[in-house]
Amino acid sequence: MKIKDKHYRSIWYNAEGAYVEIIDQTLLPHTFKVEVIDSLEKMVIAIKTMQVRGAPLIGAAAAYGLVLALQKQEDDAWLTHATEVLLNSRPTAVNLRWAVERMLKLLNSTPPAKRLAVALQEAANICDEDAALNQMIGQHGLALIQAIHTSDPQKTINILTHCNAGWIATVDYGTALSPIYAAHDAGIPVHVWVDETRPRNQGASLTAWELGQHGVPHTLIVDNAGGHLMQRGEVDMVIVGADRVTRTGDVCNKIGTYLKALAAFDNRVPFYAAVPTPTIDWTINDSLRQIPIEARNPDEVAWIQGRLRDGNVDQVCVLPEGSTAFNPAFDVTPARIVTAIITENGVFAPHALEANLHHDAAA
Amino acid sequence: MKIKDKHYRSIWYNAEGAYVEIIDQTLLPHTFKVEVIDSLEKMVIAIKTMQVRGAPLIGAAAAYGLVLALQKQEDDAWLTHATEVLLNSRPTAVNLRWAVERMLKLLNSTPPAKRLAVALQEAANICDEDAALNQMIGQHGLALIQAIHTSDPQKTINILTHCNAGWIATVDYGTALSPIYAAHDAGIPVHVWVDETRPRNQGASLTAWELGQHGVPHTLIVDNAGGHLMQRGEVDMVIVGADRVTRTGDVCNKIGTYLKALAAFDNRVPFYAAVPTPTIDWTINDSLRQIPIEARNPDEVAWIQGRLRDGNVDQVCVLPEGSTAFNPAFDVTPARIVTAIITENGVFAPHALEANLHHDAAA
Repeated sequence: MKIKDKHYRSIWYNAEGAYVEIIDQTLLPHTFKVEVIDSLEKMVIAIKTMQVRGAPLIGAAAAYGLVLALQKQEDDAWLTHATEVLLNSRPTAVNLRWAVERMLKLLNSTPPAKRLAVALQEAANICDEDAALNQMIGQHGLALIQAIHTSDPQKTINILTHCNAGWIATVDYGTALSPIYAAHDAGIPVHVWVDETRPRNQGASLTAWELGQHGVPHTLIVDNAGGHLMQRGEVDMVIVGADRVTRTGDVCNKIGTYLKALAAFDNRVPFYAAVPTPTIDWTINDSLRQIPIEARNPDEVAWIQGRLRDGNVDQVCVLPEGSTAFNPAFDVTPARIVTAIITENGVFAPHALEANLHHDAAA
Repeated sequence: MKIKDKHYRSIWYNAEGAYVEIIDQTLLPHTFKVEVIDSLEKMVIAIKTMQVRGAPLIGAAAAYGLVLALQKQEDDAWLTHATEVLLNSRPTAVNLRWAVERMLKLLNSTPPAKRLAVALQEAANICDEDAALNQMIGQHGLALIQAIHTSDPQKTINILTHCNAGWIATVDYGTALSPIYAAHDAGIPVHVWVDETRPRNQGASLTAWELGQHGVPHTLIVDNAGGHLMQRGEVDMVIVGADRVTRTGDVCNKIGTYLKALAAFDNRVPFYAAVPTPTIDWTINDSLRQIPIEARNPDEVAWIQGRLRDGNVDQVCVLPEGSTAFNPAFDVTPARIVTAIITENGVFAPHALEANLHHDAAA
C-alpha cells in the first residue's frame, strides 16, 4: 500500500545492491526508516527484535534470510546452519517454519551452484503469493462493505478493528485491513475506529500509522471505548485478523478481541475475522482447552513507549512500585458470536468453514 | 485505609495548624505527598488540577474550602464569593454542588461570628457520614464475598475491578473497594485483578497503589484481558463503582465497564456496582438517550504519564502525527447484565431498587 503516495511492500529485494530492504517497525509510528538487511545475521536480528513482525511477513523475511545466506555460501553445511538460526529466531512462529521448510524442499534437491537463483525466485514467489492471497481477502470483504454502501450511498461506513492486521504485518494489503483499503480505493466512504490495543499499542503505532499514510480516515480510541460506540450506532462492522481460526470458527486473536465481539453481538453489529485459509487450524476441537495462551513479559504492561515532548522516543512505567502485572497475549472468541470468516476463497459462516474449505476431510 | 501501616483518610483538618491536608493524587503512584491546603484559593486549585478527585472526596474538599474561606472572613459577601469560585472549580461535579449547598443552608442562618465553628463541624460531619456510608457498603458487599468463602474456604477469591472506586476517591473505605478491604481485613483470602483503565490509567495509578499500600494482593492487567480471565474461571466476581445508577438499574461508569459486564454475563460471573444511594438517579428512564456522555480531551488518549527510567515522571505520545483520537469518558451497562447494586442499605437486584430504596415514589 502507499506511504505518502508511493507504493511500498513491507519487504523487498534490491537486485542492484543484492540486499533486502525492510521498514523498521520498532521505530513506527514516530520514525519511518528503511533498513538494509544484507546478511543472514542481520535478518535474524531483524526477526528477533521485531523490526519485522506479523506472521506472513516473518515467513517472507525468513525466506529472504536463506537468500542472503546463499549469497555468502551455497554448500549443505552452511544451508543447514542458516536454517537452524532462522528457525530459532522466533521458535513459535508457524509461518517462519512453513516458509523455511518450503524453501528447503526446493533447495535440498538443487545443486549448490544453482541454489541462490532458485532461492531468489522462491522467496519472490512467497511474497507475491501472500500479496495475492490478501488482495483476494480484500475483494471478498469489499463485497460486504459494498452491500452496506449500496443500501445508503451517502453514509460513511464505520469499521472497528483491533490490533494490526494491516499491510505492514503481511507483504502487502493486510488481512483485516485489506477490505478497508479496497473500499477506500474504490471510492466508498469508510472511517476506521482503531483500538489502541494495549499492551503493545499496535493499533496506535501500526494501524493508525498505515491508515494515515494511505489516506484512509481513522480515529484512535482506547480499547475500552468500542462497546460504547456500538451502543450508540457508531460502528457498522468489526473486522479483525486472527492468529488461528478453528474448524468450528472460534477465533484466536490478540487479547481484547473477545470483548469487542461480545459488544458487537449485543448490538447486532456484524463481526468478521479476515484470514488466509492456512490460518485455519483443522486440528482444534476445544479452543479453550487446546489453544495455549502465551503469557508474555509483564513489562509490556508496565512500560509504554511513546514520543516525549522533545521528540525523543522513550518508555514510561505506569505500574506502582511493589505491584505486579499479568500479560496474556491472546483470547478466544467463540464462533457463536462470530458473523463470518473472510478468506481468499470467500466469506463463510463459522459453521460452514469445514464443508467449504476442508477438502482433505471431505475427500 | 492504610498507607504503610498508618491509617489515613484522603482529606483531614489539622486543628493545630488550622489548615486542611490532602494527598496529592496527581503525583500517585510514583510519589506520595501530603499537601497543606491553607486557603480557599489553594483548595480551588486542588480541585481544578485534580489533586483531589472522586465525587465524594470533591464534596468534602468543597466543604473544607468554605471552612478555609471563613477562617479569613465571615461576612456574607465573602461567603458568596467563596461559594461561586468553589462551584466553578468543577462545574459538572454533582457532589461538589451538593456539599456546598448543604453547608450554605446552615451558614446562611448562622450569624457571621459563629459561621466558622458551624462550618468546621458540618465539614467534619460530611466526611464522617461519607466514611460511614462507604463502610456500610463494605459490610453488605462483604456478605457476598463471605458466601463464596464459606463454600470453599481454601480458595483465594478473585475479584475484578475497573477504574478507581477506592478510598482515595472518597473520604475513606471507597465504594467498589470497600467490600474488598472488609474481606481482606476479615482474613478472607482475596486477590484483585486491576484493570489499568485507559485512558487515564486510574487502575494502575490509584487502585493498584492503594491496594498495595493496604497490603491487598492484586495484579494489574490491561483493559483487554478481563474477558479472557473470566473465560478461564479466573474471576469470581466483578465489583465496580458508578457515576450514576438509574431507577431501573442501568450503571453509568467509566468507559469500558460495559465490556467487562458483557464478559461477566457471558461467563456467569456475578457483576456488581457498589454505590451510595444518593448516586441513584430516579429521574432517568432511558439511559442511552438521557445520560450525556462527556467526550474528554483526546490528549488523554494520545499522551500517557509514567515514570522514566531515571525516576522522573513525564508523558509520552502514542499517537502518530496526523492521526486524531476520540475520548468518550463513560458508558452505560444495561441492567439486564447487572447482577445487583451494593448500597449502604443492602444489596438489591436492579429491578428491586425502586421498591426498596425510592421512598419518595412509594410515599
